[in-house]
Amino acid sequence: MNIEIVPVEGLPIIQKGDDLPALICNIVEINENDILCIASSVYSKSKGYCRTLSSIEPEIRANDIAKKCGEDPRFIQAVLDESEDIIIDHPFILSQLKHGHVGVRAGVDNSNVEDGIIIMLPPDPIGSADEICERIYEITGKKIRVIITDTCGRSFRRGQTGVAIGWSGMSAIHDYRGDHDLFGRELEITEEAVVDEFAAFANFIMGESNRGVPAVIFRNSPYWEGHNELYFKPEEDITRAALKDLKRF
Amino acid sequence: MNIEIVPVEGLPIIQKGDDLPALICNIVEINENDILCIASSVYSKSKGYCRTLSSIEPEIRANDIAKKCGEDPRFIQAVLDESEDIIIDHPFILSQLKHGHVGVRAGVDNSNVEDGIIIMLPPDPIGSADEICERIYEITGKKIRVIITDTCGRSFRRGQTGVAIGWSGMSAIHDYRGDHDLFGRELEITEEAVVDEFAAFANFIMGESNRGVPAVIFRNSPYWEGHNELYFKPEEDITRAALKDLKRF
Repeated sequence: MNIEIVPVEGLPIIQKGDDLPALICNIVEINENDILCIASSVYSKSKGYCRTLSSIEPEIRANDIAKKCGEDPRFIQAVLDESEDIIIDHPFILSQLKHGHVGVRAGVDNSNVEDGIIIMLPPDPIGSADEICERIYEITGKKIRVIITDTCGRSFRRGQTGVAIGWSGMSAIHDYRGDHDLFGRELEITEEAVVDEFAAFANFIMGESNRGVPAVIFRNSPYWEGHNELYFKPEEDITRAALKDLKRF
Repeated sequence: MNIEIVPVEGLPIIQKGDDLPALICNIVEINENDILCIASSVYSKSKGYCRTLSSIEPEIRANDIAKKCGEDPRFIQAVLDESEDIIIDHPFILSQLKHGHVGVRAGVDNSNVEDGIIIMLPPDPIGSADEICERIYEITGKKIRVIITDTCGRSFRRGQTGVAIGWSGMSAIHDYRGDHDLFGRELEITEEAVVDEFAAFANFIMGESNRGVPAVIFRNSPYWEGHNELYFKPEEDITRAALKDLKRF
């Protein structure tokens, strides 16, 4: 049975307090084992993970970085508040968030929200994905799998792609260690970041603009086994080490 | 109409000289505007972009790097031969290929080929994608779009994902510059690397192991407009600059 892609179209503009899983279930039929990808921005809006710029008092460091980056110091303060480790602070802030994801401006976003409001990534995206699974089960009696997506740049290649920041009901990485190729030899490529491959294509379906498709269902997807160590530890990550060194220049 | 995913299952083990587009057309029905993703490895095999390790004479530099990386110097020589610019040479070679892609070991692969044989990425993957489009048109009279994929690691996140190295009939990047969000403001995220989002999900469908699904069709995909500048220029790429600096330590 081939995989089917079902965009979740026609959601209202999400407000704080909205029951996002219930709104999704009103629009599309949920099947057992569906993989539901949800844009972090719309999930964060439903939970009120937003701040008004006018309520933020930038500290000295935020003012310094804002000058280097040409950004609003209140916005930079919000980025610093979300960050656990600043990898570079100009020409843009690249930082590691508390939950492990490394992203530009800590994923703080001011598109598709009202003027003067900024929107943060969910503070515990794995917990959020679990919660969405449970809520969908409450409503429909169906066990599904969930991925929460963000949009992110990358090294060497221009343009953004979708990545996973939270997931539930699956392993982030399909672990092939011990598997063999078509000629019976052990594989060299042994870890596939499957959640990011789903998130990437979900992001294409969502679009970045004003299409208003903040969620996508993948139906009839196979299962995989693996682990959840999606993020390199700092000491394993040569890019991170190199960028941190560069910061000293 | 929702996007449909059609795995191309049941291809024979590909040999040099095989007419890969014809073999694919024998197995699956091709529709106008389909997006056909093909693994670079299987395309390279059909074209004979392979070398036997025993025929390679490593030069001094290859021997030096092989010691640092703990690899076969003949394999390292093949990686150097494919590379235009070495970004780091240990603990693994990361280099830019002639066609712009930056990858570990220049994408030279020894899985799913006979012992002692290594397989290179196609030297002109854009030309290859064009050629596949034309051949499919010859056979079926259908105009399709083609992406040639490779599998690649990334910064900050563990695991490999599919990326595009060649494409035809589409822009690599969907360019949103000038577009507006749901609240009418100009978007900050303006370039989406759509070819990589397709390649990522195609890679999931292909699997990395011994599933023998080297091609995937996406049916009913919308169109996008943009440009083909998928790779950063060296002077735009902060990660590349940082890694090159690190090399001096």
